[in-house]
Amino acid sequence: MHNYLMVAGIIGATGYAGAELVRLLSGHQKIDKLVLSSVSYEGECIEDIYPNFLGCVTGALLKAEDVIAASDVIFSALPHAVGEHYAAACQEAKKHYIDLSADYRFGDDEAAYFAWYGKKYQYPELHKKSIYGLPEQNRQKIKELAVKEPAIIGNPGCYPTGATLGVLPALRAAVAADTNPIIINAVSGTSGGGREPSRSFHYCECADSVAPYKIASHRHSPEIERNLGVKVIFTPHLAPMNRGILSTIYIPLSKEWRTQSTVSITQKEIEAKTDEIRKLYVDFYKNEPFVRILPAGVYASTNRVRHSNYCDISVHIDLNGSTLIVATAIDNMIKGAAGQAIQNMNIIFGFDEKSGLEAIPMLF
Amino acid sequence: MHNYLMVAGIIGATGYAGAELVRLLSGHQKIDKLVLSSVSYEGECIEDIYPNFLGCVTGALLKAEDVIAASDVIFSALPHAVGEHYAAACQEAKKHYIDLSADYRFGDDEAAYFAWYGKKYQYPELHKKSIYGLPEQNRQKIKELAVKEPAIIGNPGCYPTGATLGVLPALRAAVAADTNPIIINAVSGTSGGGREPSRSFHYCECADSVAPYKIASHRHSPEIERNLGVKVIFTPHLAPMNRGILSTIYIPLSKEWRTQSTVSITQKEIEAKTDEIRKLYVDFYKNEPFVRILPAGVYASTNRVRHSNYCDISVHIDLNGSTLIVATAIDNMIKGAAGQAIQNMNIIFGFDEKSGLEAIPMLF
Amino acid sequence: MHNYLMVAGIIGATGYAGAELVRLLSGHQKIDKLVLSSVSYEGECIEDIYPNFLGCVTGALLKAEDVIAASDVIFSALPHAVGEHYAAACQEAKKHYIDLSADYRFGDDEAAYFAWYGKKYQYPELHKKSIYGLPEQNRQKIKELAVKEPAIIGNPGCYPTGATLGVLPALRAAVAADTNPIIINAVSGTSGGGREPSRSFHYCECADSVAPYKIASHRHSPEIERNLGVKVIFTPHLAPMNRGILSTIYIPLSKEWRTQSTVSITQKEIEAKTDEIRKLYVDFYKNEPFVRILPAGVYASTNRVRHSNYCDISVHIDLNGSTLIVATAIDNMIKGAAGQAIQNMNIIFGFDEKSGLEAIPMLF
Amino acid sequence: MHNYLMVAGIIGATGYAGAELVRLLSGHQKIDKLVLSSVSYEGECIEDIYPNFLGCVTGALLKAEDVIAASDVIFSALPHAVGEHYAAACQEAKKHYIDLSADYRFGDDEAAYFAWYGKKYQYPELHKKSIYGLPEQNRQKIKELAVKEPAIIGNPGCYPTGATLGVLPALRAAVAADTNPIIINAVSGTSGGGREPSRSFHYCECADSVAPYKIASHRHSPEIERNLGVKVIFTPHLAPMNRGILSTIYIPLSKEWRTQSTVSITQKEIEAKTDEIRKLYVDFYKNEPFVRILPAGVYASTNRVRHSNYCDISVHIDLNGSTLIVATAIDNMIKGAAGQAIQNMNIIFGFDEKSGLEAIPMLF
Repeated sequence: MHNYLMVAGIIGATGYAGAELVRLLSGHQKIDKLVLSSVSYEGECIEDIYPNFLGCVTGALLKAEDVIAASDVIFSALPHAVGEHYAAACQEAKKHYIDLSADYRFGDDEAAYFAWYGKKYQYPELHKKSIYGLPEQNRQKIKELAVKEPAIIGNPGCYPTGATLGVLPALRAAVAADTNPIIINAVSGTSGGGREPSRSFHYCECADSVAPYKIASHRHSPEIERNLGVKVIFTPHLAPMNRGILSTIYIPLSKEWRTQSTVSITQKEIEAKTDEIRKLYVDFYKNEPFVRILPAGVYASTNRVRHSNYCDISVHIDLNGSTLIVATAIDNMIKGAAGQAIQNMNIIFGFDEKSGLEAIPMLF
Repeated sequence: MHNYLMVAGIIGATGYAGAELVRLLSGHQKIDKLVLSSVSYEGECIEDIYPNFLGCVTGALLKAEDVIAASDVIFSALPHAVGEHYAAACQEAKKHYIDLSADYRFGDDEAAYFAWYGKKYQYPELHKKSIYGLPEQNRQKIKELAVKEPAIIGNPGCYPTGATLGVLPALRAAVAADTNPIIINAVSGTSGGGREPSRSFHYCECADSVAPYKIASHRHSPEIERNLGVKVIFTPHLAPMNRGILSTIYIPLSKEWRTQSTVSITQKEIEAKTDEIRKLYVDFYKNEPFVRILPAGVYASTNRVRHSNYCDISVHIDLNGSTLIVATAIDNMIKGAAGQAIQNMNIIFGFDEKSGLEAIPMLF
Repeated sequence: MHNYLMVAGIIGATGYAGAELVRLLSGHQKIDKLVLSSVSYEGECIEDIYPNFLGCVTGALLKAEDVIAASDVIFSALPHAVGEHYAAACQEAKKHYIDLSADYRFGDDEAAYFAWYGKKYQYPELHKKSIYGLPEQNRQKIKELAVKEPAIIGNPGCYPTGATLGVLPALRAAVAADTNPIIINAVSGTSGGGREPSRSFHYCECADSVAPYKIASHRHSPEIERNLGVKVIFTPHLAPMNRGILSTIYIPLSKEWRTQSTVSITQKEIEAKTDEIRKLYVDFYKNEPFVRILPAGVYASTNRVRHSNYCDISVHIDLNGSTLIVATAIDNMIKGAAGQAIQNMNIIFGFDEKSGLEAIPMLF
Repeated sequence: MHNYLMVAGIIGATGYAGAELVRLLSGHQKIDKLVLSSVSYEGECIEDIYPNFLGCVTGALLKAEDVIAASDVIFSALPHAVGEHYAAACQEAKKHYIDLSADYRFGDDEAAYFAWYGKKYQYPELHKKSIYGLPEQNRQKIKELAVKEPAIIGNPGCYPTGATLGVLPALRAAVAADTNPIIINAVSGTSGGGREPSRSFHYCECADSVAPYKIASHRHSPEIERNLGVKVIFTPHLAPMNRGILSTIYIPLSKEWRTQSTVSITQKEIEAKTDEIRKLYVDFYKNEPFVRILPAGVYASTNRVRHSNYCDISVHIDLNGSTLIVATAIDNMIKGAAGQAIQNMNIIFGFDEKSGLEAIPMLF
C-alpha cells in the first residue's frame, strides 16, 4: 500500500493502441488512476466510444495538456508526425514520456526519419536522448536514463518487434552470413491498420483473402535495419484476422554453420544443427520474461500469443542446410504496441516487468 | 496472506471449457495451486496439449481420483452423462463440486434429464440437494448450502445463461404476456462445439456461413424452460466466430404494456415505454456485478463481452408496441461456462465475486 | 445467332451490387455488350476499380445518360432517393428499367416511401405503373407490362426477398394464425452494407462478432409488410461473413394446424405435420426455378446458396406444435440483388429465366 | 450439336477436389454427362452429401470400375498412393486419365516419389509416359501424347502451381542468380486440407490465426524443385480463409540485373528495372489464357482470383535492387486442383481451353 497515487496519462486514447493501453493499464496494480485525451472526442467519455468498457473503465476525454499536467507517466498513441512536441512538454514537466508513434524511434538519425516520414526534427536534442524501447535490446539503457532524468521512449513498431527479436540472437551468435540479405516475410492482422475505416480494411475487401502490400516501401523497413545493423528485405502482408503478426524470417547461415553445397545433409543432421541453434536462442533470451523459444515440433502461431505480451519463436533449418528459418509470433496490439509500452513503463519505474501484462494467451 | 494453500481441481482439463478454467484460475488470486486430470492425455502436461500455456501454466495430467483427493474445490468439465459419480466422491471427501456438464442441472426432475439425456439418475439424493448455479437467480441458495455442507453445483449451459438472464426481469415485472410463447433466437460461436474435430466445425464448412441447427430438439430447451417456468421456442444457430452467444428474445407484452392494436403508436411513445422497461431491468440487476443493461442506442454485441464474464442486455420494443425484444450477449466460454463456474466458486467460498474474473472485454 | 446486339446498361456500376451485375451479365449468353456508368469514377475503367475483372471484363465508365442512350435495358444500382428520374428518362427512351434501389418498390404507396425514405415522389404516375420485381409473386404482371410498354421494375430488397419467400406459402395455405405477428429474425453478411468504408463494416469491428442493429427501425420492415399484407416484427443482425442472409421466421400456426395447448404432442406427430406443411411449400413453388424446399433433416444454410440465385427454405415446427419455423437462405448479392434483377430482365425479354444465373452454389 | 454423348468420370467425387470437379464439369458445355464414384458413400447420391447441389446436380455414387467403363475421360481425386492402378485400368480401357493426387507427378523419378510418399511404383512404364499437367509448361507434350494414345496426366499440386508459374519466367530470362536458393513463402486457405475433420482445421484452432507448418518437410518441395530444376526453400503457412494460395517468392537477381552493392539505387531506377522484368513476364505468358501479369501498383491478392482458374502475378524488386519479389495468387481448389485438371482435359480433347472455366473472379 502506498499513499501516493500513481497516475498514467494517455494521449490519443481512442485509437486502437490507445484503447488497448486503457484496457491493460486499468488492470495494472501499480496504476491508481488513468487520465485520457482525444482530439476527436474531447468532452466525451471513453466508455461511450468503446461500450465494451461500460461498467469497468470510465474516463472523460480531456485535452493533451491536461493529461500531461495530471500524470506521472505519459503514453502517446497519436498518428506519426503530430505529437513530437509532447515529448518536450513532458521534459519540461519532468514526466516520463513513451511514444507509440514512430516519432522517437530514430534517435539521432534524422535523415532516416525524414526520408520515410517526410518531416524534420523539431527537437533534435530530445531525439538524441530518446531510447528505442525494445526491452530485450535496450533494457539497461532505459533504466539508466530513467533514474537520471525524465525518459523519452520511442516504442517500437509492431513489425520491427517481431522481426528484430527473431534475428538478434542469430546475429549475436554469428550464425548469419554477412553476404546475403535477411528476408522477413510478415503477415499481420487488420488491427494494425487502426480504427479509421478505409477500403483496405473494409470487411468484404479483406475477409477470406491474403495479399502483400507496400513491398519495398513500408516504413518499418528502416526501423528494422536500424535495429539489426544489416540490410533486410521486408515484405508485409495482410491476413483476415483481428490480431497478430507472424514473421517468417530467412537468415542465410554463415560458412561455419552452412552445409557444404557439394554434400547432402541428412534429416538427422539438420535436426541436430537446429537443436544447437535453438539452444543459442534459449540462452540469448534466458532472462527475458516475454520471449518463449518453442520446443522442437511446435511452430510459432499467432493464436498462441493472442492477448498476451509474449513473442513466440520457433527455429528451423531448410532442407539443404543453407538457411536458418525463424518464425516469430506476437500480438501486434500488445507486444507490438500497448503491452511493450507498459513493459517500458515498468522498467522505467522499477516495477515488476510483468505487471499489468500477466494475461495468459487465449488460444481462441 | 494466508498460510493455507487453496487448491482447485479440474477434471477434464483438456477440453475447451477445462482449458478456460485452467487459464482463468491461474490468474485467480485466491487459488494457490491447480491440479488437473484428463482421461485422454493422462501422464502428459497441460502445456504440451495447449502450447499457448508454455511458460505461464504448467501441470501434469493426473487421474480424476487424485484431483479430488488433492483439491478444496473440484470443477468437472467432462461430457454429459459420464461424471455423475464424481459428485458422490466429492461429497464423501467433503469437497465442493461444480459440474459444467448438464448432469446436475435438473435437480429432482429426473424425468426431464432422462427425456433429454437418456440416462437415469444414479444418485437421486445428490440431485435433490444440488443447486443450479446461475448466481443471478440462486446466489442465496448457493451460499446457504455451502456453509452447511459440501455443495454440488450444476453450472448452467451457455444458451440457457444468455436466455434466462434476458427474460427473468420481464417475467418478474409481469411485463410478459402469459399466453404466447417467448421466442429465443440464439446465435453461437463455434467454441460451443468443443475441441473434438467434426464436420460441423470443420473450418471450410462453417466459415463465412450462418445456419440454424437442432430446431425443436436442442437439449438446452428444457433447461431454459425450467429456469423460467414458462414454455419457450428456442432456435440455436451457428455463426463463424470463435466465441460468443447473441440471443435475440421476443417477449409478447402483457395487456398492460401492450399498445392497443386499434391505435397506432408513435416512435416517441415506444421510446418512453422502452425506457420504462429498461429501468425495470436496471433495477432488477442493480446489485449484479456481471450484468450490464446497455443505454438506449447501444445494441448487445458479442465482441463487447468477449473474454469477460459480462452478460450485456439491450432492451427494445417492436414498431407496433406489441413485443419486447431483448438482446443479450455473453462470451459462451466464460459467462456461459468457465467464468460462471468460477463465479459460483467465489460465492461458495465467500470470495469477492469478481475474483479471477476481472478481465475487461476486448473489442477485437 | 442473332444479328441484333443486345446491350445492357448499368448505372452505378462500381458499387457492390453494380459490380455483381457486371460480373453476372458478362456471362449472360443473351447479352452482347455492357455499357457502364459511375459518378465517382467517370472516365476510368471498371477493371481499374475492380482488378478482379482484369482480362475478363473491360468497360469505360460513362455518364448515366450515355448508358441509357446505348442500352436496351437499364439496371440502376444507385443509392436510394437519387435515381428516380432515370426511370423517366428510360420511359422516354422506351427502354426497360430495373431499379435495385428502394425507389420503385412502393408502387402507389407514396406515404410509406415518404415515411421511411424521407422523399416525395417526383413521378407518381411512374410509381403507379411500376412493378415490384419478386418473380415468385409478380412474374405474370411483369410479363404483361413488358409486352405492352417499357417496364419499370422495383427490384426487391435483400431482407424482403428472404423473408417474403419464406412466409408466402404459409399465408396462402392459411397455415398462419391471423392474430399474432410473424417474427423475422434475419442475419446478414457484410456485403449488404455496400462498398463505402464505415466503422460498422471495419474489419476489426465486425469480425468474430454477431449483433442486431436497427431494431424496429430498418427500412425493409414496411417493404416486407407490403409484400405480405400482414404486420411483422423484423430484426436484422450482422454476422462476420461476406455474403448471405439467413432468415429464421416464426409463424404462429392457425387454430386448425395448432396443437391444442392442453394436449402434449409427440415427436412423431410434429414430424407428420411438418411433412404436410413442407408439401404445401413444395407445391407452392413447384414451378419456380430458384426456390428449393429442403428435405427433412437439412437446414437452410447460407453457404449452400452462396454464389447462386437460389433461395433455400427449410420448414420446421416447434416442440409444442404452436409455431411454424421457416428458415430461408439466400445470397444477398444475387437472389437478394443483382441475380434477381437479371431474373427480372429474363422475364421481361422472354429469355430462359435461368440465363446468366446458372451458377451452382459453392459450398466454400 | 453432336450426337455422341461426352461422359466425364470422377473417382473420389466426394472429397473437396472431387466436388469441385463435379461443380465445374456440370457447367462445361462439352460434357454431356458425369458419372461419379466414392468409396465412402457408394450407393448414395452426390446431392445428399453436398446439399448445395440439390436441384442442379444429381448423380449416384458408383464403384470406380463402373466410372471407368462409362466415361471418355476419368479424373481421379483420391488421396495419394491409393489409386495408381486406375491409370492402368484406364490405359487398358483406352481412356484418358487425369490424376489429381501426387501419384503421377514424378515421371520416371521413382526415387523422389518414394522418398516423399513412401511407396514404390507399381507401374513404372506408366509413370514414364505420364505428363506433368502444368499447361503453361507442358501444353505441347500433352497434346502430342493425347493424339497418339490415352494420356496419363499428373495434375500439379496447389503450391507447386503458384510457385512454378511465379518463377519460370525469371529462370527462362536468366534474371535469377544461380547461386542462392529461391525462397517461396506461401500462405494457403484451409480447403487445401481436404474435407476430413482434424484438429488443424477445426474452426477454433485456425480461425483468426496464421502459422507455418511442415517447414523443410512439405511434400510439395520436391515437386517444385522438379518443375524448376533448381533448389528452393519452400515454407507453407495456413491462414483463416476458405480458398486461395498467396506465394511470395524471393528470387536473387543475376549479376546483370542486380544493383552493385556499393551503389545505392533510386526509387526510379527500381521502378524502371521492375517494368523491364514485368515485360518479360508479360511476354512469357502472352498466349496463356489463365495467367494475368498485374500492372504496376496492383498486388496479387487471393480474393481477386477466387472462384476462377486465373493465376495472378505481381512483380517487384526490393529496396536495394538485389532481389526480385514475385507474388502469385491462385484459387487452390481451381487453378490449384479441379480447374487445372479441366484445363488439361480441354487440351487433351482439343476443346477451347477456357471451356468450363469461364468464371469471373468474385471479389467477395
